[in-house]
Amino acid sequence: MTQNIYDDETFFAGYSRLPRSVQGLAGAPEWPELRAMLPPLAGTRVLDLGCGFGWFARFAAGEGAASVLGVDVSERMLERARRETPDTCIGYRRADLESFAPDAAGFDLAHSSLAFHYIVDLAAVLARIHTGLAPGGVLVCSVEHPLLTAPARQSWLADADGRPTWPVNGYLDEGPRVSNWLADGVIKQHRTIATYLDLLRGAGFSLRRLVEWGPSPQQVAAEPSWAKERARPLFLLIAAQRD
Amino acid sequence: MTQNIYDDETFFAGYSRLPRSVQGLAGAPEWPELRAMLPPLAGTRVLDLGCGFGWFARFAAGEGAASVLGVDVSERMLERARRETPDTCIGYRRADLESFAPDAAGFDLAHSSLAFHYIVDLAAVLARIHTGLAPGGVLVCSVEHPLLTAPARQSWLADADGRPTWPVNGYLDEGPRVSNWLADGVIKQHRTIATYLDLLRGAGFSLRRLVEWGPSPQQVAAEPSWAKERARPLFLLIAAQRD
Repeated sequence: MTQNIYDDETFFAGYSRLPRSVQGLAGAPEWPELRAMLPPLAGTRVLDLGCGFGWFARFAAGEGAASVLGVDVSERMLERARRETPDTCIGYRRADLESFAPDAAGFDLAHSSLAFHYIVDLAAVLARIHTGLAPGGVLVCSVEHPLLTAPARQSWLADADGRPTWPVNGYLDEGPRVSNWLADGVIKQHRTIATYLDLLRGAGFSLRRLVEWGPSPQQVAAEPSWAKERARPLFLLIAAQRD
Repeated sequence: MTQNIYDDETFFAGYSRLPRSVQGLAGAPEWPELRAMLPPLAGTRVLDLGCGFGWFARFAAGEGAASVLGVDVSERMLERARRETPDTCIGYRRADLESFAPDAAGFDLAHSSLAFHYIVDLAAVLARIHTGLAPGGVLVCSVEHPLLTAPARQSWLADADGRPTWPVNGYLDEGPRVSNWLADGVIKQHRTIATYLDLLRGAGFSLRRLVEWGPSPQQVAAEPSWAKERARPLFLLIAAQRD
């Protein structure tokens, strides 16, 4: 079972103050690129795995989705999601993604933002998503980029010329990584890009697009403190189609 | 036009002493994984782009390929390739990959080992490979992994615990990189993994497999000095199919 760190009081308090929690999708700098990878949503049945506060569910409803089911393991997040969701086409369910089984062919789009890197048995989760999608259905997801999850110590170094330099080690050794992000002892699963692609293919998906996201030069111009974030990508964005 | 570093005397002398030049494919530690990505070769028409000393061409002939055309820009390499190739089904041609145009649908497999990271206009090269492959034909290639080409300074650092750590910066800023590998001023083109995949899709290929190659734990056990090479992959191996 995946660690439910979001119901940790310290983690939840910190997470609730992040721009993406306060401003929603507009506070997530990767959102424009992820949005561009979505199929048209009008009339579709949408599954959101790791729905958090329901920002994506409400976006999908606003785009005309026929129905949206948001699933999350965190009671605290779902409580706020329900409170802030007036849309009647949106439902929420508390479940561990490691065991949640959607209805067969019940959805046209599965979306998951920054949740899969917590999943231990991702092959099993992808197999159930495949079952839950109608033929031709699409999975659009984001995870922390493997360059972020790989290192034993996630802190910047400087190269011989003083450039901000990301310290990569352990990339080929997959498995759990413990980090102290918002709270102590947060467990994430490190996988290589190649493994993400192998798992998708193994579950019966064809890759449509892969993006290694970091701030664009335009975003850095608007927010100069982000300059070093172009040293390596922050997120991996993937769109795949059910074969 | 791509730099023809292989005809530089210093570079050629150094390159000729590498295990992969002395022992051939058996001296290339990534070869078993690349080989596993190849389709059956019996009866096929094979194009080898950046054929070097002809090791792969002779392997393909040995596997029963109907014909093999090896293309390389280096006169020095082709001279040795011709000298060491008795097989009559193998031909060699001197050409810059940036302008070489294979006959339309003239090949079933295009192979290229560690050449594409020298190519400036890879989109155009992939488009010509697509034209040169029969429908359903396969491209199997390797390039230096983007984690190798990205950094301004390709030398190991240590993290706070002394672990060998690869210094990643500039990953998202694509373009030429000058390194001093075997000779001074070797120019390679840095591209992200996402860009390699976008270029393949844009040229009309579907991804079959992507491998981020580093030595396996078994290879490290046999050659302990390779241990730090598991900190990050060395090569990207790709198999794609002409749509």
